[in-house]
Amino acid sequence: MSKLLKIGVAGLGTVGVALLSQIARQRELLAAKCGRAIEVTAVCARSKGKDRGIDLSKIKWFDDPVALARSTDIDVFVELMGGAGNPAKAAIEAALAAGKSVVTANKALLARHGVDLAALAETNGAALNFEAAAGAAIPIVKTLREQLAGNPVERIYGILNGTCNYILTRMEQEKLSFEVCLKDAQRLGYAEADPSFDIEGHDTAQKLAILASLAFGTRVDESAIYVEGISSITPADLTAADELGYRVKLLGVAVKTAQGIEQRVHPTMLRKDSAIAQVMGVTNAVSIDPQGFNPLTLIGPGAGGFATASAVLSDIADIARGTRVAPFGRPAATLTDVEKAPMQRHEGGYYIRMLARDKPGTAATIARHLADQEISLESIVQRHAKDASEEETKSGAVPVILITYATTEDAVRKALAAVGRADVISGRPQVIRIEKN
Amino acid sequence: MSKLLKIGVAGLGTVGVALLSQIARQRELLAAKCGRAIEVTAVCARSKGKDRGIDLSKIKWFDDPVALARSTDIDVFVELMGGAGNPAKAAIEAALAAGKSVVTANKALLARHGVDLAALAETNGAALNFEAAAGAAIPIVKTLREQLAGNPVERIYGILNGTCNYILTRMEQEKLSFEVCLKDAQRLGYAEADPSFDIEGHDTAQKLAILASLAFGTRVDESAIYVEGISSITPADLTAADELGYRVKLLGVAVKTAQGIEQRVHPTMLRKDSAIAQVMGVTNAVSIDPQGFNPLTLIGPGAGGFATASAVLSDIADIARGTRVAPFGRPAATLTDVEKAPMQRHEGGYYIRMLARDKPGTAATIARHLADQEISLESIVQRHAKDASEEETKSGAVPVILITYATTEDAVRKALAAVGRADVISGRPQVIRIEKN
Repeated sequence: MSKLLKIGVAGLGTVGVALLSQIARQRELLAAKCGRAIEVTAVCARSKGKDRGIDLSKIKWFDDPVALARSTDIDVFVELMGGAGNPAKAAIEAALAAGKSVVTANKALLARHGVDLAALAETNGAALNFEAAAGAAIPIVKTLREQLAGNPVERIYGILNGTCNYILTRMEQEKLSFEVCLKDAQRLGYAEADPSFDIEGHDTAQKLAILASLAFGTRVDESAIYVEGISSITPADLTAADELGYRVKLLGVAVKTAQGIEQRVHPTMLRKDSAIAQVMGVTNAVSIDPQGFNPLTLIGPGAGGFATASAVLSDIADIARGTRVAPFGRPAATLTDVEKAPMQRHEGGYYIRMLARDKPGTAATIARHLADQEISLESIVQRHAKDASEEETKSGAVPVILITYATTEDAVRKALAAVGRADVISGRPQVIRIEKN
Repeated sequence: MSKLLKIGVAGLGTVGVALLSQIARQRELLAAKCGRAIEVTAVCARSKGKDRGIDLSKIKWFDDPVALARSTDIDVFVELMGGAGNPAKAAIEAALAAGKSVVTANKALLARHGVDLAALAETNGAALNFEAAAGAAIPIVKTLREQLAGNPVERIYGILNGTCNYILTRMEQEKLSFEVCLKDAQRLGYAEADPSFDIEGHDTAQKLAILASLAFGTRVDESAIYVEGISSITPADLTAADELGYRVKLLGVAVKTAQGIEQRVHPTMLRKDSAIAQVMGVTNAVSIDPQGFNPLTLIGPGAGGFATASAVLSDIADIARGTRVAPFGRPAATLTDVEKAPMQRHEGGYYIRMLARDKPGTAATIARHLADQEISLESIVQRHAKDASEEETKSGAVPVILITYATTEDAVRKALAAVGRADVISGRPQVIRIEKN
């Protein structure tokens, strides 16, 4: 058995505490699986006195994460503080510059500085592992980084935010409003007091940026992602989706197209019988379409202390065994700039829900503006007034739901703008993209 | 860039040919991801003259796989011949003894000799990788071997045989008999001319034996597995399952119990809304219940040339990068003997379908014998005669379907033996175990 691997952990929130207790509890299993003992020898957090329910008496305390990162008391620096900038960034840089391997769960930092940190790790012969940064315990980072070595990825898409999936699941199953479900999610600790980062899709976008880089060999580029959240989704949309054989999920999608790589986060209609559409509650899931064979789908907990700590611990175990893989699966210097496919060029089917004014010629007007943009319809459903919301009923309008065949984002936007100008609908149409799977 | 990694491939069937063409086609991607070029420099197969649609003119030919394995022309030996004994075994041993890393897709050989081969690999500092041996492209071997390093596994279960899942899917969706679907599977190349290895569950058992070893740190032991195939399943069972909210899948299950490790392969009723119950056709899926957090489920193609070759290529890529992990996730010498939980002690719910004779006292007799074994019933469905098969109708008996609460295998067997002796049913009862998920 080779020598003890000494771990320094910066950040003692839920994940940090779960990690420390898991390392202590599974000492023998870890030693058997890694060929050496693993021990947390130093930690750093904001307040030393706080009772975290774990014994820190034999662990060296640091007030400054950068000092911990540089310390000769540790072999591996684990960053669980979060935040897209300092002190997390400075601490990781200090560790890598000193040749120490780093494990981090910090998606915000990786989305912004991942490539530079990867280059620094490579220069110093250190590992930079981040399985926990996307999908927590789901082994998606490792699968993209190490598996599929000889199979280019065509598309990767997934449910990467448990908060949104919890809200959409509750809305669908109990026909509750977005607002009610969000409040419940906050009460249960699934959503933050300021939920916008989750519900507006930014959390998903950061994770998608990391996964797209691993999948396509491109530089991480969150700014290349089109982002739409779930706050406009209504129970009526979910009911209509259900009747049409679909389910609505907030997806992150990155796909190779003739125009480049399209990266987008938005509510998406998925065939109900697909594996990913079955994923309910806070669970996450990712599907990969490789070139040459059928998709892989990985499903599991996307958050939670022990699930996230498990991914961190797997990363530590890889370092303990001496495994060194380029952080983004190939040398950082060879990652290419994202050739961004413009969202206007997005092709696919669309769900469109409009409140049509109940007057002669409305249907013909809508149909004509769609036809002008060469949009063909797979189905048209005019809803009974009883399925309309109270507000809708008051407006005297009738809900009309259209499912289009494959068309472009540009055509849909132009057609709906023309329909809007024609004054035959009430309010703004709801548009949900359909993802083939 | 370090030096070329020279690959020798023994066996040029579908997988071997797919591997060669993929390595040639993805030369640049592989070099970028592995930091070195990968090239097939030597091959071995039964007939040299056969047209395989690939150019072998620049590749050295061997007639003897053992000679190829020993050859200094190669760095890595890839075994795709199959078979639980020689020449595959002798060739792998020769390669490992010479310190060459080995990649194999040979589940039969690993199920029988995996631990000895792992020990030989470890002694010689060589890798022995076998991602393709279970679940083809699904990264289940790597996930069990390298991830979850600090989280003991409580249970692993999965759909590991595409032939059986294809047959059960067709039977369920089209209400066809087992025999008709088997013939179609044979015609489409999903089943062998002699299908018994697949449909009687032995293929699943070999894969389960390997996965259980990785999951629990036990020696691979196919003989410890209780095995039942799918040939007794009828469309009536699948219809009844559907009505009760279940779907029937052939599962391999390995689970820690108070009695030891229970390993079993049998048709299983799964809640229809679970991810794994949604897996249709030839697709495979594996779920892992880790200690401390929610399950992981991995879904993907479990067979096929390119899917299997992709797993082989991932194993080669790991070797190219210098990754060395004990073949079964911990040193072979530390793997423990399976403490086998006897099948009689299996606990769970049961689906029981019987043809009850239409005479007074039948229901009371059945109920009494179940009660004698302390079996409680969750539901009882007496079928209309119209749902009975032609044969059943002729017998004048009425199908009765029982779903039990958790009980033991032993209790069910005893109760059904007593019911049989009481002469109130016609034929043998159908028994399908329910797996909680």
